[in-house]
Amino acid sequence: MENERLKKQIEFCLEADKEKLVTRQTLVSDSSRGETDAEHAWHLALMCILLSEYADEKIDLLKTVTMVLIHDIVEIDAGDTYAYDENAKQTQALREQTAADRIFKILPEEQGEKLKALWYEFEECKTAEAKFAHTMDNFQPVMLNAATDGKMWLKNKVKLSQILKRNEVTGEGSKQLWEFSCNNFIKPNVEKGRIKDDVN
Amino acid sequence: MENERLKKQIEFCLEADKEKLVTRQTLVSDSSRGETDAEHAWHLALMCILLSEYADEKIDLLKTVTMVLIHDIVEIDAGDTYAYDENAKQTQALREQTAADRIFKILPEEQGEKLKALWYEFEECKTAEAKFAHTMDNFQPVMLNAATDGKMWLKNKVKLSQILKRNEVTGEGSKQLWEFSCNNFIKPNVEKGRIKDDVN
Repeated sequence: MENERLKKQIEFCLEADKEKLVTRQTLVSDSSRGETDAEHAWHLALMCILLSEYADEKIDLLKTVTMVLIHDIVEIDAGDTYAYDENAKQTQALREQTAADRIFKILPEEQGEKLKALWYEFEECKTAEAKFAHTMDNFQPVMLNAATDGKMWLKNKVKLSQILKRNEVTGEGSKQLWEFSCNNFIKPNVEKGRIKDDVN
Repeated sequence: MENERLKKQIEFCLEADKEKLVTRQTLVSDSSRGETDAEHAWHLALMCILLSEYADEKIDLLKTVTMVLIHDIVEIDAGDTYAYDENAKQTQALREQTAADRIFKILPEEQGEKLKALWYEFEECKTAEAKFAHTMDNFQPVMLNAATDGKMWLKNKVKLSQILKRNEVTGEGSKQLWEFSCNNFIKPNVEKGRIKDDVN
């Protein structure tokens, strides 16, 4: 009986491994390829721990880290939806909810329900932990895009208005990190013409 | 002044990104390539959270997760040392300590010292958290090797005695997970001839 529980957990661990097969638009720091979902989640978890002092509300750090570790797991089924792909974003919520139902059901019931609730909490972006997790989820790719000379902004002809819309919630988790992102990542790349300025 | 601190932290986050460029021997679940250090660390962190109930001693879960998230960061400089490469293992400790000194120094001093101490705690493998982190660090590649039909065991002609030596500490963190690994991953692959039986 005990082993039945563990077997389900191991099955989930192997299913989760498929996050290593989902590639994102954001480039790794030497620009050689896009990062995978698993790498992105690792980077966010590490950054949550390093930068939690900048959260505007008190956060439960283990809860926030757990949230970012699983936040993209639905993309195993639903695929990565690029932040600026408006067509794909229309069907994103339904595709991802269906995936969440299937994937979290692999776990023992109470553990799966708990993780699924945490995934929904991230999606709803209302709690302090979910807000800070979203701050990280937006801050990290902008940081990497800036570090790779804006290649993905240029390739995808990204406009400043799109970045600002995407980042509407970034400041809700941490005003200071959002300001840092604006001043150090976004503005210099608008000035260099890597982000198309359709706002000013 | 505040921004100087944040700038150092961001520099570290970008340095850490290079963990996505270090490839391990362990294959991802579709066997298409080796997993990266960043993917491995993400997988361990997730598995620590899912499987902490099997730790034989009470563990601080956030501390354990932080430990596994950074445990391979020294490989940015020192490279991945394959578990069964006896020549490379002779120089491993010195290479990794030199790397730790350089990399953790990028952070603000007190934060860097804290993380470096956590890295050494993992290496020493004496505390409950370090033992469970090692259990995960050994359990996960064996799980993936079994899931990929033992390809890496076959390719590297791995012997049972090598796996047992490598796993000497695995049972110290969790007897149940070590037993599960023996019964479900190792024994069946000895029987199938994918692991060379030089013990029995």
